[in-house]
Amino acid sequence: MEKYVVGIDIGGQSTKLGIVDARGNILCQSVISSLQTRLDDFLDDLTRALEELIAKAGGKELIRGIGVGAPNGNYYKSSIEFAPNLKWGYDDSGNPMIIQLGKILSDRIGVPVAVTNDANAAAQGEMTYGVARGMKNFIMITLGTGVGSGIVINGQVLYGHDGFAGELGHTIAVRGGRPCNCGRVGCLETYTSAIGVARTAREFLANSEAPSLLRELDPERISSKDIYEAAEKGDALAVEIFEYTGKILGQSLADFVAFSAPEAIVLFGGLTKARKYIEEPILRHMNDNLLNIWKNKIRLEFSQLKDSDAAILGASALAWEL
Amino acid sequence: MEKYVVGIDIGGQSTKLGIVDARGNILCQSVISSLQTRLDDFLDDLTRALEELIAKAGGKELIRGIGVGAPNGNYYKSSIEFAPNLKWGYDDSGNPMIIQLGKILSDRIGVPVAVTNDANAAAQGEMTYGVARGMKNFIMITLGTGVGSGIVINGQVLYGHDGFAGELGHTIAVRGGRPCNCGRVGCLETYTSAIGVARTAREFLANSEAPSLLRELDPERISSKDIYEAAEKGDALAVEIFEYTGKILGQSLADFVAFSAPEAIVLFGGLTKARKYIEEPILRHMNDNLLNIWKNKIRLEFSQLKDSDAAILGASALAWEL
Repeated sequence: MEKYVVGIDIGGQSTKLGIVDARGNILCQSVISSLQTRLDDFLDDLTRALEELIAKAGGKELIRGIGVGAPNGNYYKSSIEFAPNLKWGYDDSGNPMIIQLGKILSDRIGVPVAVTNDANAAAQGEMTYGVARGMKNFIMITLGTGVGSGIVINGQVLYGHDGFAGELGHTIAVRGGRPCNCGRVGCLETYTSAIGVARTAREFLANSEAPSLLRELDPERISSKDIYEAAEKGDALAVEIFEYTGKILGQSLADFVAFSAPEAIVLFGGLTKARKYIEEPILRHMNDNLLNIWKNKIRLEFSQLKDSDAAILGASALAWEL
Repeated sequence: MEKYVVGIDIGGQSTKLGIVDARGNILCQSVISSLQTRLDDFLDDLTRALEELIAKAGGKELIRGIGVGAPNGNYYKSSIEFAPNLKWGYDDSGNPMIIQLGKILSDRIGVPVAVTNDANAAAQGEMTYGVARGMKNFIMITLGTGVGSGIVINGQVLYGHDGFAGELGHTIAVRGGRPCNCGRVGCLETYTSAIGVARTAREFLANSEAPSLLRELDPERISSKDIYEAAEKGDALAVEIFEYTGKILGQSLADFVAFSAPEAIVLFGGLTKARKYIEEPILRHMNDNLLNIWKNKIRLEFSQLKDSDAAILGASALAWEL
């Protein structure tokens, strides 16, 4: 009877939700704003949207559970903890709060709820519906505005002692390197996120005289999409930017392999659109930095899920485990 | 009835074995040479020593199983694979072999056998008899001639896809850093093993004019013990060597925490004798490099098992899981 799950992807701007079947088809979906300043307003909007969707799917008797992907989502506590980018995540004194989202939603809707962060949800999604089906040990790296990760060990997403395992975007790729939003320097995220790649472009443009189509753009507004488009037009500097990005990521991946010995690395996110420019450098630098026992043995996979669906699918995949 | 386990610790020079009860008491033990050049000779010596010990303990009916800690031990295959430091580990053409040690020993002795590497055995030992009792998520770092690691996730040693997970001694601590035996450069092992600390001493002595008791020694023969003894006599350069070692290790530990979010790091091995000089720098640099969610929350534990017993205990602990 319980043949569907619900996936909710909470972002800073908007929250997407959808009803998903066991094959990963999204039956129906909707979206609400995440810009409410009061938590209760957000929760009321979310509850209403959920009830509408569930009614459309045939009622809550058909729903196995709800999975939520959210910034700073804590799987063990089913909570969102101190998320800096959610407008309704602060208390009256302006301090970020712990929000017991799982309990609140399951009380309101009457089905079980699981909460985790976006990257862990993405890993669960790939394992349930994507390129990681059948894999027991892999590492998912999400290359978006930031860099997140979801680590799968023996078929289970790794949460660690406190629920926050898998912050590989904040391992140090370059000691003494670029300042990161987290307050430290040299984090992988500052080099291999969309924003990091744009920083690389500005550095390369400033530090060389090489001709480049990118010089026609306002350096402060260069995006990873601009760099991809320049590469497509044969721009050598743009290709070099992806080579450098692949080097930093490949080096870091080699260290991650030494930790958990996965069978594959799975990449997801905006930067993977530049696959033709980053795949080879990532693989080459990863293999150059691997111990002999792993050289040329670790597969590099790119997510095949549609960008627009992946977040809902990932969150929904959590609910099959409930 | 099966109230004992057997632990076997295979090293390049000698192999220790002992009978252990559930509380971690070693009832009796013995040692054989590992310097045989033919595999069959080593196996015959080991079988004889095992049979003697087991008879002394009351017969194999009392034995739950045998756990083996060995270089390049592969848990999944119960094998030793391509171990470079075992004289009897090479075939007639001089190539390192895969040795099905688990199957060979269980056929000969008639009890189940588990094989893993030394550091994973150490982690299992700490979890069963040591400071990690009751912990479900921790990272064991062994600081000996080399640097090994055993990673425990949800109460299980992490083996990964191929059985070789947890090679943290070969993550890159310093890009472009010191050459390592593994063929790469900058491995954590080249800085924080006993040999690495001696290399640091030679570098510090060569690169400064600071007075030091260590200048009285032949630089090529300085050991980590010499450095400890100099520190005990108030030698500032010796203290600085441990500070530097603690910095490199603390920085790396912060990245490991971002991977698996353990509740504690457990240190074992010769270098931990210098605890009074390395504990504070390790903790300070680890905390300086941790994301805010983990700052001052990850415990640093030092193994309390006796050096002479730890290897047998660690290997034996594997056998309780059989």
